[in-house]
Amino acid sequence: MAFRLLCRWCGREYPLDTRYWNCPSCRRPLNLVTECPKCNRFEELVDRGEAGLWRYKRLIPFSEEHITLGEGCTPLVEIKDEGAILKLEYFSPTGSFKDRGAAVSVNRARRIGVKSIVEDSSGNAGIAAAAYAARAGIRARIYVPKDAPVAKRVLIRSCGADVVECATRKEASMRAVGELREEDLYIGHTWDAFYIEGMKTVAFELFERDRIPEAVVVPVASGTLFLGLFKGLTELSDMGFIERIPAFYAVQGEGCAPIYEAIHGQIQGIKWSSLADGLRIENPPRKEEILNVIRATHGDALTVNDDEIVEALKQLYKRGVIAEPTSATAYAAFKKLRGLKDVLIPMTGTGIKTIDRISSIFT
Amino acid sequence: MAFRLLCRWCGREYPLDTRYWNCPSCRRPLNLVTECPKCNRFEELVDRGEAGLWRYKRLIPFSEEHITLGEGCTPLVEIKDEGAILKLEYFSPTGSFKDRGAAVSVNRARRIGVKSIVEDSSGNAGIAAAAYAARAGIRARIYVPKDAPVAKRVLIRSCGADVVECATRKEASMRAVGELREEDLYIGHTWDAFYIEGMKTVAFELFERDRIPEAVVVPVASGTLFLGLFKGLTELSDMGFIERIPAFYAVQGEGCAPIYEAIHGQIQGIKWSSLADGLRIENPPRKEEILNVIRATHGDALTVNDDEIVEALKQLYKRGVIAEPTSATAYAAFKKLRGLKDVLIPMTGTGIKTIDRISSIFT
Repeated sequence: MAFRLLCRWCGREYPLDTRYWNCPSCRRPLNLVTECPKCNRFEELVDRGEAGLWRYKRLIPFSEEHITLGEGCTPLVEIKDEGAILKLEYFSPTGSFKDRGAAVSVNRARRIGVKSIVEDSSGNAGIAAAAYAARAGIRARIYVPKDAPVAKRVLIRSCGADVVECATRKEASMRAVGELREEDLYIGHTWDAFYIEGMKTVAFELFERDRIPEAVVVPVASGTLFLGLFKGLTELSDMGFIERIPAFYAVQGEGCAPIYEAIHGQIQGIKWSSLADGLRIENPPRKEEILNVIRATHGDALTVNDDEIVEALKQLYKRGVIAEPTSATAYAAFKKLRGLKDVLIPMTGTGIKTIDRISSIFT
Repeated sequence: MAFRLLCRWCGREYPLDTRYWNCPSCRRPLNLVTECPKCNRFEELVDRGEAGLWRYKRLIPFSEEHITLGEGCTPLVEIKDEGAILKLEYFSPTGSFKDRGAAVSVNRARRIGVKSIVEDSSGNAGIAAAAYAARAGIRARIYVPKDAPVAKRVLIRSCGADVVECATRKEASMRAVGELREEDLYIGHTWDAFYIEGMKTVAFELFERDRIPEAVVVPVASGTLFLGLFKGLTELSDMGFIERIPAFYAVQGEGCAPIYEAIHGQIQGIKWSSLADGLRIENPPRKEEILNVIRATHGDALTVNDDEIVEALKQLYKRGVIAEPTSATAYAAFKKLRGLKDVLIPMTGTGIKTIDRISSIFT
């Protein structure tokens, strides 16, 4: 399999072992382009001796001699009367879909000889980076806002990572790249092209289970899962295995909805959704790519408010699906998209991490 | 596949749809006996159209038209330099191995027309029962000691179950069976024979991955996983697929170690292990069965103390394995069994549920 690392804006190409995390010329995110092989059956590309997402290692860069914590091959639970297909991404090493991206990004870091990785995050992505760095025997430095939940900081530290506390989420992003040292590789999930290679394996899993849906409804902050799922489906389409790519719907919380606002215009006077706080990225680096996917697939962007998230969360839990509130945003949005059937909704993380915050809903 | 529900003590047989949860004659636990089919390859018994543990549905009672929350087929992570094979049971709907048992027990309840299930538990088993009852559309009543963590009670309630608070864990057990009504089925995990059918699928997964170990080291309270794993391996042996059953080591915390004490004599003057509190069952109903497995496989029982659990937990987290302290008891015991290689250690539950309690270890 051949991969090329490109800046789509200026066309420059970089070697796969570069330590650049964005295009040094135009400051835009880099993209990995996969030259898909010609083959008749997808099974020919699947490595049955490997477990989890590494069964697709022929479509993942630096996948030989990889590390693993068991990520990928998450189950589907269908709510048949509603036409919803839930993919339970909380079946994962640290409890969220971020493990897919961290597995591939940290593994690449290891393979190109990096001794220290750097990430900025207030939650799931930081824990995932810390856990995989631990597994890989690499140091990790995670920049977190000082209001990040204590439990999340403890989880990051427990894996041996250094935690750098910053005043705000924005300061965490800026310091993470501003304080990079010679030995560091920045694998910030909002930027790193390899992260998306982990996410795209969701599409391959759907194809192997013969469950390519009519539409996908995905919570979007930096958009790694949204873009990864699209990349995987595009690769399946390029290889001739699927004819049509599902419609892509991006879901955001009211109060921080840059994708929604780019399509539908600015929302006035709305409070921030406190339950969608996993989705608070005001200016995602890959915003243009996300918008392109929505346009190309005739999808849309939606917002949901806290009341809708609470109601969705209750309905999920009453079905035994213990997901984080961010997942409930997508389920809430799906409920508003009346008439859509056969819709994939990723349950992005476990509700166990957030049970303290949402206990008032249930008591 | 034929199954028979027997009391091994008096030999009485009961129909599979009985509502008896123990032998009404001698008050002992019931056992399911599987009449294993003759077949040449295990693959012939595997249902590839099913996901998770239901791929073994031909070896599970009441498995047609089953419910699922995605349980089973958990990943393996190997620590090669130590000879340890970790099976990550926290890849599960509610974060623990109890989901395997609850899936099969609640599904049977549903299939025999039960409208209400009853369980007693202070933690993982109660959450699992509540989640599967929700998925099955069955009412659930969970008896919990009043000192059960708030987060766990919230999780049980959030799935729509009724929580009955009791003064102690023992009172919870007694009231659960004492207050049974006409419409209830008691599926208490320490007693229910069907629960073990869910656990036995761990053995089939190991066999399919060609990773039957030399020994297994399992934390034991009521012993459902220990006995289930043995039952699955015994069925594989009966069908001629494996020649030898691994040695079984039961691990308990100092201070509550009835299995250890039955073999090695009473421990004097030891404090209860606060970190092994998932293992506090003073008189497990299936104690004799557990001892028989240890004898039959030339295994043993071990105890670990809090210092050993803390050290084991640190080592697991430094490898990116975020497990609950109960899992660390088994890893700590493995470390004491010098010379044993190729050893399976189940990571029984997620450390995310217990991060508040163990944060002092890491800060």
